[in-house]
Amino acid sequence: MILANNLSTLWSSIIIDELIKSDVTHYYISPGMRNAPLVQSLLQRRDEVSLFLGVDERAQSYRALGNAKATGKTSALICTSGTALANYTPAIIEAKKSATPLIVLSADRPIELATSDANQTINQVHFYGHHILADNCLGAPTTEICPQVIRNTVDHLIFRSRYPIKGPVHLNIPLREPIDMTEVHIDEDYVERAKSGFKKSFQTKYFPPTQGLSPLAKESIAKIIKDNPKGLLVVGSLPCSLDKEIIKAFIQKLNWPVFLDISSSLKYNYSIRDNIIPTFDHSEVYEQMSRVKPSAIIHLGGRTTSKHYYRFLEEFADIELISVNWSEEKEDPSQNTDYRMICEVDQFCLEMCEHIQPSENPIRINWSEFTQKKCQLIEESPLSYPVISKKIIDQIEDKQSLYIANSTVVRSFDNYLSMESTKDIDIFTNRGVSGIEGLMASALGAAESMNKYMTLVIGDVSFLHDLNSLQLIKDSKTPMCIVLVNNSGGGIFTLLPIAKEEALLPYLTTPHDLTFESAAEQFSIDYIKVTSTSSFEEAFQNAQKKKNTILIEAIVSNEENIEVYNKLKTVKL
Amino acid sequence: MILANNLSTLWSSIIIDELIKSDVTHYYISPGMRNAPLVQSLLQRRDEVSLFLGVDERAQSYRALGNAKATGKTSALICTSGTALANYTPAIIEAKKSATPLIVLSADRPIELATSDANQTINQVHFYGHHILADNCLGAPTTEICPQVIRNTVDHLIFRSRYPIKGPVHLNIPLREPIDMTEVHIDEDYVERAKSGFKKSFQTKYFPPTQGLSPLAKESIAKIIKDNPKGLLVVGSLPCSLDKEIIKAFIQKLNWPVFLDISSSLKYNYSIRDNIIPTFDHSEVYEQMSRVKPSAIIHLGGRTTSKHYYRFLEEFADIELISVNWSEEKEDPSQNTDYRMICEVDQFCLEMCEHIQPSENPIRINWSEFTQKKCQLIEESPLSYPVISKKIIDQIEDKQSLYIANSTVVRSFDNYLSMESTKDIDIFTNRGVSGIEGLMASALGAAESMNKYMTLVIGDVSFLHDLNSLQLIKDSKTPMCIVLVNNSGGGIFTLLPIAKEEALLPYLTTPHDLTFESAAEQFSIDYIKVTSTSSFEEAFQNAQKKKNTILIEAIVSNEENIEVYNKLKTVKL
Repeated sequence: MILANNLSTLWSSIIIDELIKSDVTHYYISPGMRNAPLVQSLLQRRDEVSLFLGVDERAQSYRALGNAKATGKTSALICTSGTALANYTPAIIEAKKSATPLIVLSADRPIELATSDANQTINQVHFYGHHILADNCLGAPTTEICPQVIRNTVDHLIFRSRYPIKGPVHLNIPLREPIDMTEVHIDEDYVERAKSGFKKSFQTKYFPPTQGLSPLAKESIAKIIKDNPKGLLVVGSLPCSLDKEIIKAFIQKLNWPVFLDISSSLKYNYSIRDNIIPTFDHSEVYEQMSRVKPSAIIHLGGRTTSKHYYRFLEEFADIELISVNWSEEKEDPSQNTDYRMICEVDQFCLEMCEHIQPSENPIRINWSEFTQKKCQLIEESPLSYPVISKKIIDQIEDKQSLYIANSTVVRSFDNYLSMESTKDIDIFTNRGVSGIEGLMASALGAAESMNKYMTLVIGDVSFLHDLNSLQLIKDSKTPMCIVLVNNSGGGIFTLLPIAKEEALLPYLTTPHDLTFESAAEQFSIDYIKVTSTSSFEEAFQNAQKKKNTILIEAIVSNEENIEVYNKLKTVKL
Repeated sequence: MILANNLSTLWSSIIIDELIKSDVTHYYISPGMRNAPLVQSLLQRRDEVSLFLGVDERAQSYRALGNAKATGKTSALICTSGTALANYTPAIIEAKKSATPLIVLSADRPIELATSDANQTINQVHFYGHHILADNCLGAPTTEICPQVIRNTVDHLIFRSRYPIKGPVHLNIPLREPIDMTEVHIDEDYVERAKSGFKKSFQTKYFPPTQGLSPLAKESIAKIIKDNPKGLLVVGSLPCSLDKEIIKAFIQKLNWPVFLDISSSLKYNYSIRDNIIPTFDHSEVYEQMSRVKPSAIIHLGGRTTSKHYYRFLEEFADIELISVNWSEEKEDPSQNTDYRMICEVDQFCLEMCEHIQPSENPIRINWSEFTQKKCQLIEESPLSYPVISKKIIDQIEDKQSLYIANSTVVRSFDNYLSMESTKDIDIFTNRGVSGIEGLMASALGAAESMNKYMTLVIGDVSFLHDLNSLQLIKDSKTPMCIVLVNNSGGGIFTLLPIAKEEALLPYLTTPHDLTFESAAEQFSIDYIKVTSTSSFEEAFQNAQKKKNTILIEAIVSNEENIEVYNKLKTVKL
């Protein structure tokens, strides 16, 4: 396992050994030369790790992000020197905002080259500035630095990717030539000391403090719950790695009406029968909620997709707002939170379950008829975003996974609430910064890590942004169903008042006349184009049955889509 | 021109007005909502500016880079808030390293949202850290800040993108709602003061100091030239915006043998008849140069592509090395420079021409037969990198432009020297950091700014990395010839000793079995696949004649390519 050929391979094999001991098992590699010793060291450990190769570092970083979101574990990115690591920047920012643990291992040239304008060198030290949780760089390999220093540098960075909150970290690794397997004598003492590290099961083991609610916090929350029988529970974005069952037990015990955001991954575990509130984005819902006005809201997890929920909080600033999440962000779009409980959401639910009495919830609005009318309307509509969300949720199998892209796509799922059927689907989103990029790669990364069939729903602009990820999907062993909703350019803005600025609109929506059969062909991916609800339904059902890699392109007319939205808006309670 | 509807549009129209007054005329826009007031302001000035739209911010930033390389002027990038500006990072780094002026105009949410985890917000202030020359953020529009402050903030940033060296700068622009054209009353006094700025031709005009050589510098150089009749002139990378004629006059007057790097853009203005030295990367050349060993080298411009030139400088550390470039980088890969002249290369040549006497150059090696043998060998070879470089240089029309991608492609041009014919071609490269990404977009940006037919030569890995730029090319009015050399994965490493590590090789070369006819079809781009020298020749000639947008995919066998290289290495003087 130890590669003592020369100092570059020796240090690399130590770094990889300590990473594996720290339970980093998934490595996303982009090609290069300077990172060869790191890859060489990984190949020595092939049975213990999973290696994923991809040309575009941006796509690879989102793939690693998807993996880490699914597993909750730190995944590793490996690239060569130069601009390579700059391509990771968007995913690094998403990872920090969504508390997703990643480690960047960037090969670098030694300082004497990095500062002399040698080819493909820049200053990689502290590369990501304030966008990352922690970084380190020990300089190029030298026998002046003991092997255990390398190991405990790795240990500390992995710890920092997990504590006090999860997120991205960066280890910059300058390597001096030779960077192939050329033998260069290393002092025997040094090699011996290096070897002894391989025999140990770790260098430095970190024990983070137990995290939980203080007795005072528990008392405060219990009192608020008792004093506010007219409460509302809101669940925003949650990592899929949390224990859903504990959260569901808390929801049941609390017995407050619940507003579930799509990014909570819990939305379709419930139906309208379970006293679930439809989206605040529908004006009828907003008005009804204003009428019954809860006196307290417990908000579990991160931000909601609904913008109008935050408008509601602003309008009713006297509602007692308790926010529960493990986050270092201010996380307060309404600027109105009264209590912040810094705690993992499942831990909070576990501890509070023991401290609360089920309430007789006085807020009871019967949304059944309202929801039924909406469902009926959707059923009668031409192929459009609401139709696609409904059909996917109706048809997707229990225990399957769904990655939902940003913009209109995520809003359309957020707006759809099931009438009766419930199912346990892992729902993934990139809502940390809600970027347009890397969605195909993210979905693939999540699918690969769970080794499970994945459905991705994505708009055409986002699809085009991440086009070359089709090659990753082609080369992957894990099949995926891509539902591409093509409305010839970013449709979300056509739903907003700014749509009346005709000269401006093309610069917001990037209109195009593309369909993507040739892109599918380019990467030998099965393809079907659908233009009607029935053909979409059939194609989606077939894909779920066959579980093959397929691109289903749903052609949606912008005008028809707007019409469906407008009709849906008119539904009254 | 002034948009006084509300503070967001007012400030935006002031910013755009001052940018136009600062001669920023090319704007690369990516879609979004927060940047709408900036785009709205640009649309008011449509006749004075060129607007380019594209979905992928990474591609757009490289397109702007290509533009700025061709014009020498600051080009502008406009994006929305969130991860959008993170996608610019690789191009920002390339721009800084290659002294290419860019300004990023990133729309942002106001501070109260940016720090409360509202959707699509991150801390955009000082976003690029040490990767950028200068940045500023005045906060969201307020009447507390006078209009002239906005203007002279813009003026200063544009100045900093040009002085003391050229490079990227960043203006972060938080905008508070409304961000459409909704009327919100603004104090009349404020609007009046804003209006007066529109009548002025500038807010603050900067006069940088004259830059040139000090009398002492001129004397020192003149003395070195006089004392070292056995000199060598090396020309590394030069911006295309420099005055080539002045540099050529210096070359002629100095009368030293010359080694011209491909990125100097001067290589094909000369042939072997002009006492030009073939590449140091050929061992025969290296040996001959070691034998005649110059006593002094004047190195004009940036880094050379040839690695062996730097090995030569290291081996003969006693050679007096004078480096001339306008750069803040250490720019000294051999770590051996004796004199650094901080000066634009054309300015240096102009001033020195008056101070030197033509020398009787004692280094005269006749490279004709050597070069002829190599050319002959290439002519007899199957389709391979050397064949493609030779054929392109032989056939490209005088005064045309050539963008050369990195890795094997650029080395293959660097190695080819013409026997007789000379032509004046603008040659563009991204050799600042020599990244793999954004080459198609860069070439398009350069072509559009010159409104001239452009040929891009690119390898398959780089092509795949930048795949969605085909849409920009599809939508552009400027035609382009893309020569895609496909050897099924990064071929450069198969030429190096590490190629013997068989398990490792796939992680360096990313092998694939793709050809790209469907990608061309996806974006309605003419396509031809060629597998022989004669069919390549014909396809390339046709393209040059028709000047249409076409993708010429040249299929090159890795084995045959290596064989050609090996044969070429055996040529002796």
